[in-house]
Amino acid sequence: MAATRTIRLQDIADLIGGEVQGDPDYRVSGLATLQSAGPGQLSFFANGRYLPQLRASQAGAVLVRAEHLDSVSQVAILVDDPYLAYARVSQLFDWRSELLPGVHPTAVLAADVQLDPGAEIGAQAVIGAGSVIAAGAFIGAHAVIGASCRIGENSRVEAGVVLYDSVTLGARCIVHSGAVLGADGFGFAPESGRWVKICQLGGVTVGDDVEIGAGTTIDRGALDDTFIGDGVKLDNQIQIAHNVHIGADTAIAGGTAVAGSTKIGERCTIAGLSGITGHLTIAAGTHITAMSLVSKSISQPGAYSSGTGLQPHQSWKRNVVRFKQLDELARRVAKLEQTIELNSIEGHKE
Amino acid sequence: MAATRTIRLQDIADLIGGEVQGDPDYRVSGLATLQSAGPGQLSFFANGRYLPQLRASQAGAVLVRAEHLDSVSQVAILVDDPYLAYARVSQLFDWRSELLPGVHPTAVLAADVQLDPGAEIGAQAVIGAGSVIAAGAFIGAHAVIGASCRIGENSRVEAGVVLYDSVTLGARCIVHSGAVLGADGFGFAPESGRWVKICQLGGVTVGDDVEIGAGTTIDRGALDDTFIGDGVKLDNQIQIAHNVHIGADTAIAGGTAVAGSTKIGERCTIAGLSGITGHLTIAAGTHITAMSLVSKSISQPGAYSSGTGLQPHQSWKRNVVRFKQLDELARRVAKLEQTIELNSIEGHKE
Amino acid sequence: MAATRTIRLQDIADLIGGEVQGDPDYRVSGLATLQSAGPGQLSFFANGRYLPQLRASQAGAVLVRAEHLDSVSQVAILVDDPYLAYARVSQLFDWRSELLPGVHPTAVLAADVQLDPGAEIGAQAVIGAGSVIAAGAFIGAHAVIGASCRIGENSRVEAGVVLYDSVTLGARCIVHSGAVLGADGFGFAPESGRWVKICQLGGVTVGDDVEIGAGTTIDRGALDDTFIGDGVKLDNQIQIAHNVHIGADTAIAGGTAVAGSTKIGERCTIAGLSGITGHLTIAAGTHITAMSLVSKSISQPGAYSSGTGLQPHQSWKRNVVRFKQLDELARRVAKLEQTIELNSIEGHKE
Repeated sequence: MAATRTIRLQDIADLIGGEVQGDPDYRVSGLATLQSAGPGQLSFFANGRYLPQLRASQAGAVLVRAEHLDSVSQVAILVDDPYLAYARVSQLFDWRSELLPGVHPTAVLAADVQLDPGAEIGAQAVIGAGSVIAAGAFIGAHAVIGASCRIGENSRVEAGVVLYDSVTLGARCIVHSGAVLGADGFGFAPESGRWVKICQLGGVTVGDDVEIGAGTTIDRGALDDTFIGDGVKLDNQIQIAHNVHIGADTAIAGGTAVAGSTKIGERCTIAGLSGITGHLTIAAGTHITAMSLVSKSISQPGAYSSGTGLQPHQSWKRNVVRFKQLDELARRVAKLEQTIELNSIEGHKE
Repeated sequence: MAATRTIRLQDIADLIGGEVQGDPDYRVSGLATLQSAGPGQLSFFANGRYLPQLRASQAGAVLVRAEHLDSVSQVAILVDDPYLAYARVSQLFDWRSELLPGVHPTAVLAADVQLDPGAEIGAQAVIGAGSVIAAGAFIGAHAVIGASCRIGENSRVEAGVVLYDSVTLGARCIVHSGAVLGADGFGFAPESGRWVKICQLGGVTVGDDVEIGAGTTIDRGALDDTFIGDGVKLDNQIQIAHNVHIGADTAIAGGTAVAGSTKIGERCTIAGLSGITGHLTIAAGTHITAMSLVSKSISQPGAYSSGTGLQPHQSWKRNVVRFKQLDELARRVAKLEQTIELNSIEGHKE
Repeated sequence: MAATRTIRLQDIADLIGGEVQGDPDYRVSGLATLQSAGPGQLSFFANGRYLPQLRASQAGAVLVRAEHLDSVSQVAILVDDPYLAYARVSQLFDWRSELLPGVHPTAVLAADVQLDPGAEIGAQAVIGAGSVIAAGAFIGAHAVIGASCRIGENSRVEAGVVLYDSVTLGARCIVHSGAVLGADGFGFAPESGRWVKICQLGGVTVGDDVEIGAGTTIDRGALDDTFIGDGVKLDNQIQIAHNVHIGADTAIAGGTAVAGSTKIGERCTIAGLSGITGHLTIAAGTHITAMSLVSKSISQPGAYSSGTGLQPHQSWKRNVVRFKQLDELARRVAKLEQTIELNSIEGHKE
């Protein structure tokens, strides 16, 4: 834990390109919300709704925009984007320990693993034949790296992650515990009512600066690699099927499933528990709201949704019955319109 | 396996506060359904629909309410709540072995782990610096406990579970295999189309008597801890995002995802594959039906639902087309109403 | 990696019952799509839409139906079903290495494990008391097999899988990493607002030729076993609750959850992220489309769906408001129909 480390405000300001208002030698030991921060802690004001909390905050120092300086009674660092500044400062106080290069004596490495001496291999990790582990990489306890894998510089494979054979991870990635990369894609050919397995001969290629959440699964491609672009952020328990291609800087929230061979463009944001069916193309910059089903390609960026809103159960039940009759209801309305129109014409005729 | 153990009916009755009808020395070796139970097995009658099964049952003994005693031909234990009695009796026949206190020789413990001698540490478990393992705790094979964790008395961390640093588990918890507690919350600040990681500086605090299902993930908080209250029951493959707060005795079924900073009250029941978006407050005692999307706070307890009912695919397709035109349909109905009203007024004028 | 192996076309044709057109001694080193295949690679033409790609393909050889032979310029194998032929050929080029029978020195096996000498036990695998591992079985690195389990012939338990006690796996199964079989079903009896655990005394029985995807969880039964029939294919991150029964050759896609005691018939296909509530019976041959909620039993096979289609967010919001008023709208339409009918009758009376 880095919690006891303290840092000078001026050093923080230099890092984030901010300007200190007050004592540049004031030291902070950590970050906290406006409500819970106390002396020696740094907070941030990024959301206008929390102005009363800013005014009442006991924080030792705050990150604010210049326009809110008059609501601040403590030392401050003026920045253009306090939320971004908070993100950068958070990295100074991360819970992760410094890397301890070397191989834990209980780890099991194939004889021909190419291991940079600047990497750390944790207790009981297993690394298969021909894999390459770059400088600054961290392989957590119990992680299993298959054969012919590549782990890029400064990437972290957390405890218990499993990479099957032929998975390539770029630089500065984080793969969280419980994630599985390179399991077989779900491919079978039907034969007289039974299923014949299609062996999945591709691998998985993950770009640089990708974060993959706990329990997320990314299957190996059927013939070519499943591909995750640079800067992609995947939350927990996401399912990425074989042959999927995710464009750079797309972010996907927890529980979403993407079916086989779908191509998602760059800079998309896909909310949680959404489903995207197979063989689609999703335009760059598309936003999908929570629990939506995408079953057709999207060529125009924009926000898309499906589903119904939440209701008290009893009225919902009545509406669901009506939904099942909706086509019939629409036909009845069209007929009414015709009748009225007819009556009206006949009325005018009289 | 405890399947060969036999227990006197009177001992069972004493445990559950029931009254034996028949031979108190009758011994049972296990529990079974009314349909599959045979001599030497105990069954229970908790659902009125199964009265014919009760009458036909070959069970050696049954748990029943007094009012159904005339349908029983075997030894019986009279109880007020046979289902609750079954729950208590099931604990006498659990498949888990007795704890074998001690540390497996292949486990890897940091030098300063505070380990109670009454705890059991399984094969190849890994426990990080400064963690505290209380009496009666069980750490399964291959479980990874990070640094600065606390595992309360008689809690079980099953095989392969991963706890990151700074996760606190209360007493009498069960965390099932594949669960990951304390992975980074999904927090990023946007900067010119890319994402800057917000390090997640909080931990996870889990109360007493909590059960966490296989593959469930609970992320560490951004600044404060993610919090799971006493008696909470989480099924498999649930995703709990950073800063979420779940009130005591709430039960959530499999596949549900709760987004960041949402507060769920006490004694809620949330059915499977539901999605709860971020920064909401859900009233105590709320019930959410399966696959519902909760995207607004709920202040009144009650049952809530979203979605449409299941239909044959062809008629569903027609209704889905109409759903997309529903606002327009409603406007057409309003216009019809106006026209009719007008016709009616004009009719009266004539 | 088997990528450097080459195989004679005639040998492939003999395996799949096809007929070589051209040089039977032509050798191929792998499979690829029509677009990416080059000399020495075999491709296949299974989907009529890709006829231009077939004509332009640089593949060394192709699998085609006789009727498309005139579009082929390379060596070919004529088959009735090129997709099925591709499936069979893919198995010749699988990424998995040959089995290396024996036990890794870091594995931990209980003294009474019945281990066939033809099985391979990977690094740091753990196998509990009384378990039986058949010939040709593969237990991957870090897999944990509980007590009293049975692993059938030629089954693969990939790295990091956890089987609790009393899980039986048939022959030729594959269980992918992150899967957990036999964790406790989600069973609790309510008692004054709290939950009393119902210990789950059953196990899990899995038939032959079953594939279980990464991160999929199958809970042990409450009293009897949870049952997965022969030939069932489960994709990643599926949740199968206690007492569920899945009929032979049913295939379920990723992220689907099946609640307790539901019986799914044979040869069903259930698309991803679907939810099936508890205690239902689903007819053999049923097809459920993606993200559908099944909350009633299905007695007639056929295709079923729920949900609404995807729409631009703004128009969707308006339609969702109308959905909540749908029952009221339907009543208004009925009233309009009555009024028109009345007007019409009165009109005729005049």
